[in-house]
Amino acid sequence: MKITRFQHNESIEYGVIESGRIHLIDGSVFSEEIAYKDEYAELDRVKLLSPVVPSKVVCVGLNYKDHAKELSMPIPEEPIIFLKPPSSLIGPGENILYPSSVNRLDYEAELAIVIKKYTKSILSDRSSQHILGYTALNDVTARDLQKKDGQWTRAKSFDTFCPVGPYIATDLDADDLHIELNVNGQIKQSSSTSNMIFGVDFLVSFISGVMSLMPGDIIATGTPKGVGSLSRGDKIELIIEGIGSLKNQII
Amino acid sequence: MKITRFQHNESIEYGVIESGRIHLIDGSVFSEEIAYKDEYAELDRVKLLSPVVPSKVVCVGLNYKDHAKELSMPIPEEPIIFLKPPSSLIGPGENILYPSSVNRLDYEAELAIVIKKYTKSILSDRSSQHILGYTALNDVTARDLQKKDGQWTRAKSFDTFCPVGPYIATDLDADDLHIELNVNGQIKQSSSTSNMIFGVDFLVSFISGVMSLMPGDIIATGTPKGVGSLSRGDKIELIIEGIGSLKNQII
Repeated sequence: MKITRFQHNESIEYGVIESGRIHLIDGSVFSEEIAYKDEYAELDRVKLLSPVVPSKVVCVGLNYKDHAKELSMPIPEEPIIFLKPPSSLIGPGENILYPSSVNRLDYEAELAIVIKKYTKSILSDRSSQHILGYTALNDVTARDLQKKDGQWTRAKSFDTFCPVGPYIATDLDADDLHIELNVNGQIKQSSSTSNMIFGVDFLVSFISGVMSLMPGDIIATGTPKGVGSLSRGDKIELIIEGIGSLKNQII
Repeated sequence: MKITRFQHNESIEYGVIESGRIHLIDGSVFSEEIAYKDEYAELDRVKLLSPVVPSKVVCVGLNYKDHAKELSMPIPEEPIIFLKPPSSLIGPGENILYPSSVNRLDYEAELAIVIKKYTKSILSDRSSQHILGYTALNDVTARDLQKKDGQWTRAKSFDTFCPVGPYIATDLDADDLHIELNVNGQIKQSSSTSNMIFGVDFLVSFISGVMSLMPGDIIATGTPKGVGSLSRGDKIELIIEGIGSLKNQII
């Protein structure tokens, strides 16, 4: 099942993709059984939004073996986590603003976990019951400010620095998904989630041991090798197998 | 005016302290003019909560001259920012949980700014119009994990690591407020907000240049000298002139 959130007439709705149309959801996407309205919308006639509105976005740094190797960095013993603010989120097709105070802006293609229900201090083998599904997330980073500050927060927190979407895919095995990022049609990142150092079940367990996770919270699972910089006007496409294509442009 | 948020009968209410009683607010505390219900509650018969529910808590590291001197660190050129998740907030009188995975837990007394309205890229001289008021915040930190990770997020994000309160004081000049923290009645931190490196107006402007701030968002303005560690059972009291006393206990 692919869940979408979108602007429909004057309201914001959730829906499920069915044969190229959207079947509108009645009530919450976080309930045990999803209920439907007797109403459909045409995919190409609505504005897709970030498929989820999280209370927090928890990100994991340096979580791909190929990326650690590319940076000649040792494989971390434990996940390094940081937060992006909810104010940084944008949806599919929305523009990423290149701040005038930034000199180097990078993309980072990531698989994102969407939490289904309240989650606190759970064991890894219970994680899958707490995951609603997966989406794609571009952890846009001001690389110059990241280096300058030491702490990564400012560099990763600008408005529009967190494109998310296009859908939440609920029936997906995250162990070996192809993940790819193109800039202006040129492949820049191409890897598999099988290269992750810490897998999704471990990450949900580890992070829930620190902080309570709420329905809709996002965990971004780190980026594979091939990170690089962006220029104004660049068109970015982030594709994850089974999820879809998230397109955004730098302005 | 001192604004409080509290549990009253079965509901959560906002109110204003008037001669030792709470006058209940009708509608939002973020509206231009606060409206009142014809209803009062007794301060000593309600459970005070964190006076605000932020979409994000932005913190500033190393922002007191006396604290920088104590650590023999240079005064930063620009504010170093990080985030604490909303899930870490607790209110006055609530307990701070000492995680079993932590070996050194520290207090950090801070003046916190509460944002009044949507704030994006404003100049310093407009900041005061965007500030609802001030409260006290204890930036509880797992010092061992802060050093281990390099990134400060995990160390500062555990549930209960962000006591806030007791009130939001709205008519306060933040330039020279006494700030003090006691552990079991012994003074550990005693300073003035006049020792801040970056003042509140500059911080609101600087942070709003990175990310949109929403009504209720919190900016924690850094801690003065005298930071130190806590043990299970410790009673902490954080007092800021004009705001009041925020008490919490470690369990």
